[in-house]
Amino acid sequence: MLREFREQAGQSQETLSAECGFDRTYISRVERGIINPTISRLWKIADALDAPLSQIVKRMETWIAEGGQRG
Amino acid sequence: MLREFREQAGQSQETLSAECGFDRTYISRVERGIINPTISRLWKIADALDAPLSQIVKRMETWIAEGGQRG
Repeated sequence: MLREFREQAGQSQETLSAECGFDRTYISRVERGIINPTISRLWKIADALDAPLSQIVKRMETWIAEGGQRG
Repeated sequence: MLREFREQAGQSQETLSAECGFDRTYISRVERGIINPTISRLWKIADALDAPLSQIVKRMETWIAEGGQRG
């Protein structure tokens, strides 16, 4: 889910990691739903992607409504 | 911020606590910005309030844009 936003922003896990200050493996784990991030970390990631967090969450809701798993 | 949504939903910290299964003191701490909740807990709280999480986050963004603190 987050991965889609990152790719649309033309960022790699490495550049996003450098931008928001979290480890690349952390980003990877969030994207794979292994880590359940705190809202404050998600704000930072959204900022680094220049995307409003509400838009990311909205996309997640659509995805869940279509039968996807939260993560 | 969350408190506003809870009150609009006509819920007390006690009823929200019973609905989402988190302790009342946990709800209180989230509302006061003392605890930085995970996204999965926020989903549960939003569900219990019958509010889309994206709408809560959107309201937070407006509030921040107006000079409020994240929390």
